[in-house]
Amino acid sequence: MKFTLQHADPQTKARAGKLETDHGTILTPIFMPVGTAGSVKAVHQHELLDPIHAQIILGNTYHLYLRPGLDILEKAGGLHRFMGWDRPILTDSGGYQVFSLSGTRKIKEEGVMFKSHIDGSKHHFTPENVMDIQRTIGADIIMAFDECTPYPCEYGYARKSMEMTHRWLKRCMNRFDETEGKYGYSQTLFPIVQGSVYKDLRVQSAQFIADQGREGNAIGGLSVGEPAEMMYEMTEVVTDILPKDKPRYLMGVGTPANILECIALGVDMFDCVMPTRNARNGMLFTSEGIINIRNEKWKDDFSPIDPGIGSSVSSFYSKAYLRHLTISKEILAAQIASIHNLSFYLWLVGEARAHILAGDFASWKAEMVKKVSTRL
Amino acid sequence: MKFTLQHADPQTKARAGKLETDHGTILTPIFMPVGTAGSVKAVHQHELLDPIHAQIILGNTYHLYLRPGLDILEKAGGLHRFMGWDRPILTDSGGYQVFSLSGTRKIKEEGVMFKSHIDGSKHHFTPENVMDIQRTIGADIIMAFDECTPYPCEYGYARKSMEMTHRWLKRCMNRFDETEGKYGYSQTLFPIVQGSVYKDLRVQSAQFIADQGREGNAIGGLSVGEPAEMMYEMTEVVTDILPKDKPRYLMGVGTPANILECIALGVDMFDCVMPTRNARNGMLFTSEGIINIRNEKWKDDFSPIDPGIGSSVSSFYSKAYLRHLTISKEILAAQIASIHNLSFYLWLVGEARAHILAGDFASWKAEMVKKVSTRL
Repeated sequence: MKFTLQHADPQTKARAGKLETDHGTILTPIFMPVGTAGSVKAVHQHELLDPIHAQIILGNTYHLYLRPGLDILEKAGGLHRFMGWDRPILTDSGGYQVFSLSGTRKIKEEGVMFKSHIDGSKHHFTPENVMDIQRTIGADIIMAFDECTPYPCEYGYARKSMEMTHRWLKRCMNRFDETEGKYGYSQTLFPIVQGSVYKDLRVQSAQFIADQGREGNAIGGLSVGEPAEMMYEMTEVVTDILPKDKPRYLMGVGTPANILECIALGVDMFDCVMPTRNARNGMLFTSEGIINIRNEKWKDDFSPIDPGIGSSVSSFYSKAYLRHLTISKEILAAQIASIHNLSFYLWLVGEARAHILAGDFASWKAEMVKKVSTRL
Repeated sequence: MKFTLQHADPQTKARAGKLETDHGTILTPIFMPVGTAGSVKAVHQHELLDPIHAQIILGNTYHLYLRPGLDILEKAGGLHRFMGWDRPILTDSGGYQVFSLSGTRKIKEEGVMFKSHIDGSKHHFTPENVMDIQRTIGADIIMAFDECTPYPCEYGYARKSMEMTHRWLKRCMNRFDETEGKYGYSQTLFPIVQGSVYKDLRVQSAQFIADQGREGNAIGGLSVGEPAEMMYEMTEVVTDILPKDKPRYLMGVGTPANILECIALGVDMFDCVMPTRNARNGMLFTSEGIINIRNEKWKDDFSPIDPGIGSSVSSFYSKAYLRHLTISKEILAAQIASIHNLSFYLWLVGEARAHILAGDFASWKAEMVKKVSTRL
């Protein structure tokens, strides 16, 4: 993998870059649609290319490991071939889902015992086998196995957890570096900064992560319920330490405004279920603001959902029609809203990149943050 | 509307025709995907064009009347504009849904009182207002208000019901003929033959319907639980009487084999929820036979769903991937399976037409009925 920093904004810490993988090039800042179980919910693979213009998608190790399982994925020749997506994929380490979805789990130094949320079966994730699992899934970028601390989190727990995450990282790197990709293309491992909302822990963790010299670095444990200002503060503490010549990935963030603010703090990569999950609940992010499509006011608004983002789906269907489908619980409602929201997110990061390159990112961002936070 | 009978098969009663409407031409025999509430479930409008190649779709008056309601549809300029579909549309009369979905309903000579399955509100359908409603929805082909008798049905009830359906037809025609389309294009009214599974009633009804001299005719009250042989027998009784120079529409039919058999009996138009409803339950109709995609045998079958029907979606996704999505309850499973099944149905009627024109329909049909009935 090769990252090229193309331009650094002089007024903010925003950057425009280029990340080259064996499955193609990613222009940053970028948003990665979440394809939990090998499908970005309600979206066809060709729709990810057009009209969404996704450049990389995310898969969840926990889900893919449980279903369809490693046996099927390996026989298929990896996730790209299994699902029919030949652009880059990033997989998380499964840690987050083990903590949030699995009923019973026991965290020990060795790893985590957990029960499947599907059938209650028992499983064990360790830093080593999570590397092996992600080798088999075959993502281009794979994530270190970490503990994502909740919010709020006591200082003592946050420190101990961070230290274990660092020890786990060493084990991840050892395993990753002594193994090879299974399908003839390169994979790379991103370590994850933890430390909860404690500045000294974040500094310590960011320095530790930076010292490992991997090809990219991630910031975890944020967007878990803390106030946005706290998230921005922690993000900035970390991006000030992480190497400038490596991509920075802020995990699980966030709203359009969160993304713009964090781009301004030097983050290059984002993922979040919000555009697809909220779409399924009738919440649309548009270039003019936020729409609750269930609202009565849209019932006879026959204007397009959002003609301003160059997405064929957002220009084709009207607000009134989408409202009708949503109220009527038609599957097509989820399809249209998911494509729209993802198109909007990809449009937004594309615009951010264009303004970074054009040199007017700061003023554009200030205006845009207001717009995208407005409730229409 | 103009119907041209292009070719009559000498060995069977199958026909190839051309039906011209203000929204475009339909080549028959044709299958009409069902778009109940203004959406063919899980399918985008552009997907109906390609890869499905739908030429006409069906909307349900009962559903559209309740939601989004006539006010919205009229403001939108009719259903075509509301949903963004500029090819032909046929609407049923709402009678079938009143009888099957509405909890409480009272059938009287004047019309039917019913309660909405959505909110329990009370409504009244009469032959006259159902014409007005379909004028407002704006379908190219609208259906007479009839009573669809259940199976089994006592002879006395079937006869009385048929006679009322005939009286209702007169009222439908009067209202239809004294009103005009609202959106600048022509609409046409199809009457419906009833008579349950009684040959003498079917003969009587078919003669009555034929005598009205409308531009097309429909056969209702079949595919409601009676044995297939009985359905074929009644269909043939009716098609032998209905005028040859008008299209015949067999309502609510059916399986791929049903459709092939009824094409051979002289039917030109079909609709059925089966391809989309069964798709959502993981049942696929393919050119090689029927697949239950949940079956373990497909878990590592990475071959395309059905490469034999020229549908990009059916060629792109593998059986193993679709099985995984189905088992995982991913929305994309419903999307892929619905597009596939509809692509297959449209492929099947297109092939039937080609073989009618080529003169080898009978032998092709015999072979195909076996194939499409096989469980893989």
